Amino acid sequence: MKKIINEPTKVVSEFLKGMEKAHPELEYTEKLEVLSRREKSDKVAVISGGGAGHEPAHAGYVGMGMLDAAVTGNVFSSPSPDRIIEAITKMNAGKGVLMIIKNYSGDIMNFGLAKDLAELEDIQVESVVVRDDVAVKDSTYSTGRRGIAGTVFVHKIAGAKAETGASLQEVKAAAEKAIENIRSMGMAMTPCTLPAVGKPGFLLGEDEVEIGMGIHGEPGVMRTTMKTAQETAEILLDKILQDYDYSNSEVALMVNGLGATPLMELYILENEIQTLLEEKQIKVYKTFVGNYMTALDMSGCSVTLMKLDEELKKLLDAPCNTPGLKIG
Amino acid sequence: MKKIINEPTKVVSEFLKGMEKAHPELEYTEKLEVLSRREKSDKVAVISGGGAGHEPAHAGYVGMGMLDAAVTGNVFSSPSPDRIIEAITKMNAGKGVLMIIKNYSGDIMNFGLAKDLAELEDIQVESVVVRDDVAVKDSTYSTGRRGIAGTVFVHKIAGAKAETGASLQEVKAAAEKAIENIRSMGMAMTPCTLPAVGKPGFLLGEDEVEIGMGIHGEPGVMRTTMKTAQETAEILLDKILQDYDYSNSEVALMVNGLGATPLMELYILENEIQTLLEEKQIKVYKTFVGNYMTALDMSGCSVTLMKLDEELKKLLDAPCNTPGLKIG
Repeated sequence: MKKIINEPTKVVSEFLKGMEKAHPELEYTEKLEVLSRREKSDKVAVISGGGAGHEPAHAGYVGMGMLDAAVTGNVFSSPSPDRIIEAITKMNAGKGVLMIIKNYSGDIMNFGLAKDLAELEDIQVESVVVRDDVAVKDSTYSTGRRGIAGTVFVHKIAGAKAETGASLQEVKAAAEKAIENIRSMGMAMTPCTLPAVGKPGFLLGEDEVEIGMGIHGEPGVMRTTMKTAQETAEILLDKILQDYDYSNSEVALMVNGLGATPLMELYILENEIQTLLEEKQIKVYKTFVGNYMTALDMSGCSVTLMKLDEELKKLLDAPCNTPGLKIG
Repeated sequence: MKKIINEPTKVVSEFLKGMEKAHPELEYTEKLEVLSRREKSDKVAVISGGGAGHEPAHAGYVGMGMLDAAVTGNVFSSPSPDRIIEAITKMNAGKGVLMIIKNYSGDIMNFGLAKDLAELEDIQVESVVVRDDVAVKDSTYSTGRRGIAGTVFVHKIAGAKAETGASLQEVKAAAEKAIENIRSMGMAMTPCTLPAVGKPGFLLGEDEVEIGMGIHGEPGVMRTTMKTAQETAEILLDKILQDYDYSNSEVALMVNGLGATPLMELYILENEIQTLLEEKQIKVYKTFVGNYMTALDMSGCSVTLMKLDEELKKLLDAPCNTPGLKIG
């Protein structure tokens, strides 16, 4: 295993220390693995989190216009409730806290426990669950669909709504609306290697890809040979469009890299997706291409669409300033 | 070879088409592989370019506050003079053009020829050559040091200076000052695979890394076993500090990924670099962590320092809005 680390058990704390040093506007709470905005705002707090290994998600989306705090578990492993409670109590400004949770059983349980504990302390907490991955109905770590790259759009929408001074229920409603309108589909070309394990969790052949693989290496829908960018765009987009009717609507498009895929290839894929969307008269309002939600050193990609209305457009365009996404 | 492409011969044009679609403020000139700002400003034009495969460099740095145009050659191969001339004539607003060239023989020759041709048309052209890589004195493709990730700082400084309305000589002087103050050093953990070749250009053992390898896979200074993040930080930083005295100064720090290295690992390395710099009383003014200058799907990293004075700080902090870097 070739990784730029010191010890597998220290990767999360050391990476968060590095983030705090690189971004002085962010604050790291040691041992609890919470990265938060240094200045607390008089507004609804928006928090998220999950296992490490998906960087820049989620710590990279802490900052003005997105998250107030991110809670990190070990690699691919849910953060414990005490960590989540720390983020809630630290960032609550008396207006309540919205938790954005990806749909994995561990996260649902731990964020749920933290919510119960926070409510005992009279902190208003609401949560939304992102389940954007159309690949499989249930999966290894989830009942129902998995939450993947579309989560970043939910961070953006909820964060922007909270900045307007909206109430907890209004911020939750905006996040729910985004979630209803988001679908994603991915493909993996190589497995990833967990620092504590040291070897890939599964193998793919020299010319083999897995369609619909999850961001922890969970099985997808089929293994096939490597396709052209055009064919890959068709496979991924078809699966999304079979699930949700985006026709005649305006959308935000994200072409996301899983960590080890060159940016050049992501843009080549995006070029094909744009052509297909144009043929189908689906208008792209804004495009995001890059590594937004990764799976360590996995090579592969995902495509996400979010249908927009006037409110979502405005929230998507609102300024944000985080390590992983800057707008305006 | 598993790559998200259609045909190896089309990767550059398709990726640039994808960039134009994703970023409507940018314009793609077909066949000449120039990506430029759609609106020409009444100021000195700053252009750069080189072989493809280093994305987001250079096309990703076109936009307000950085480049006016980027010229792209085939993968790892210099753009021809006709392409460079297109960028020069297209973006010249009568105030002259500064070309930022990485020190590779092909680039030096082709940008030089383009300069001569532009001068025949009475366009004022100046150039600066980035040679920040302290790994080797001469290399496979260069006489003298190679230009690597530090080039992104030069784009930022020259672009910001041009936005102030400065003259061509003043913009050139700011770029030269940046270049004088920049040193970089890298390490590769895996080779990269060119789309047209289909297999890696060399091999590294299971636990082997190459210190000082170039961004096209050119040899470095030594092969060794994989080190810890702390040891890697020491090796890379020592080589930089042996070459240039940064003591008691303020610097900009870039920890750059070569394409396939997880962001988590880059922050872990950055954390170690920050600790070492603090011990040496070198003050970090601003930190950049991410994939800024890549080598296709190479796994590895580089570290760059730029010594700052008041002018460089101001230019570094000035707003920019490009796909690859946004400030302010």
